[in-house]
Amino acid sequence: MAKAPTALVTDRRLLRGERTRQAILSHAARLASAEGLEAVSLQRLASDLGISKSGLFAHFGSKEELQLATVDEAGRVFTEEVLKPGLKTAAGIGRVWAMCNSFLSYLSRGVFPGGCFFEAALAEFDSKPGRIRDAVVDKRGYWVASLARAIREAKPAGDVQPDVDAEQVAWELGSLLVGANSSFVQDGGTVGIERARRAIRDRLERIATSSAPRLLTL
Amino acid sequence: MAKAPTALVTDRRLLRGERTRQAILSHAARLASAEGLEAVSLQRLASDLGISKSGLFAHFGSKEELQLATVDEAGRVFTEEVLKPGLKTAAGIGRVWAMCNSFLSYLSRGVFPGGCFFEAALAEFDSKPGRIRDAVVDKRGYWVASLARAIREAKPAGDVQPDVDAEQVAWELGSLLVGANSSFVQDGGTVGIERARRAIRDRLERIATSSAPRLLTL
Repeated sequence: MAKAPTALVTDRRLLRGERTRQAILSHAARLASAEGLEAVSLQRLASDLGISKSGLFAHFGSKEELQLATVDEAGRVFTEEVLKPGLKTAAGIGRVWAMCNSFLSYLSRGVFPGGCFFEAALAEFDSKPGRIRDAVVDKRGYWVASLARAIREAKPAGDVQPDVDAEQVAWELGSLLVGANSSFVQDGGTVGIERARRAIRDRLERIATSSAPRLLTL
Repeated sequence: MAKAPTALVTDRRLLRGERTRQAILSHAARLASAEGLEAVSLQRLASDLGISKSGLFAHFGSKEELQLATVDEAGRVFTEEVLKPGLKTAAGIGRVWAMCNSFLSYLSRGVFPGGCFFEAALAEFDSKPGRIRDAVVDKRGYWVASLARAIREAKPAGDVQPDVDAEQVAWELGSLLVGANSSFVQDGGTVGIERARRAIRDRLERIATSSAPRLLTL
């Protein structure tokens, strides 16, 4: 009889611990996008969030573990904000278009205050080999690979011409989106976002079959 | 009689001072592209170059002045390595193509060890308003504006269709080049550079008139 309530208390503690961890990482990811991952330290988070450094240490153990957990949290946000909304659209050229529009929306809504988390982190860690750089490169690669897969899957759906080089087009779309990010962090305006949307629509229209659906502005 | 030798000595001193300054800034710009402009401090340069901190202080006065001079030095390198070689080609679509190829060559030759200086600096300073951010944005904007001007000038040369939106195309070319930079700093390979070249050639062929010269691979 004593077992169930104890387990319940433990569950609640775990849940509270999980919520605390989530709140810490959410702050850390936003901080990193604006000031860089190097700004994400146990000391800085303890000071920002008013929790003890030893409490943070219990959660993460070291600055590197904290930074890695921050990259993972940013990946979770990217999946929720960009990948999942895009995948709600059926396979076809409309899905590729929806994924690109989700990315532009993630930028313009300022999900991260410093623009795309992964572009900022890549620029910061490009010359620093190690686990953090690897995690950033891995997640960035997953995004472009997801675009390429969506383009490939649009071929059997009848929307994309069969001879299209999906990897090349995915690279181009990814670069136009990186360009939108650079413009956005440079001036905070939407000119670059609209230029990217126009360029991507134009690029997709050139790989579409005559029977593909029209690309609606989302 | 005494005047000339004194002036000569002063000139030599100035020249030596100028050469020292140039050597310091050349190191600073390379350091900034790899480790970030924040790494460029009087202390770090004194240690790297084996000169006294007070000597550096005499040249630059403060960390911010040193960082601003580093951005200017990077601009000088960019002008020499990218803008000037591009402008050697006569106005027309060939000049636009030459400018883009100069940029790709500047990347692949590793002129800066951390990829394009200005993309790295923009990512670092995007959320830090001030003179350094302004200088970076200004120089980055000059590059895209130069591409736009080259496209506009290719119209009276008869190479580019008159209804082409030069600013839109320049933005797209700039973004594809930023994408090449991201790919290059991510893996150090040339796949992204070749993808960018292919995408840019394709984009330029779509704005070219039927009488425009063929774009040769440089």
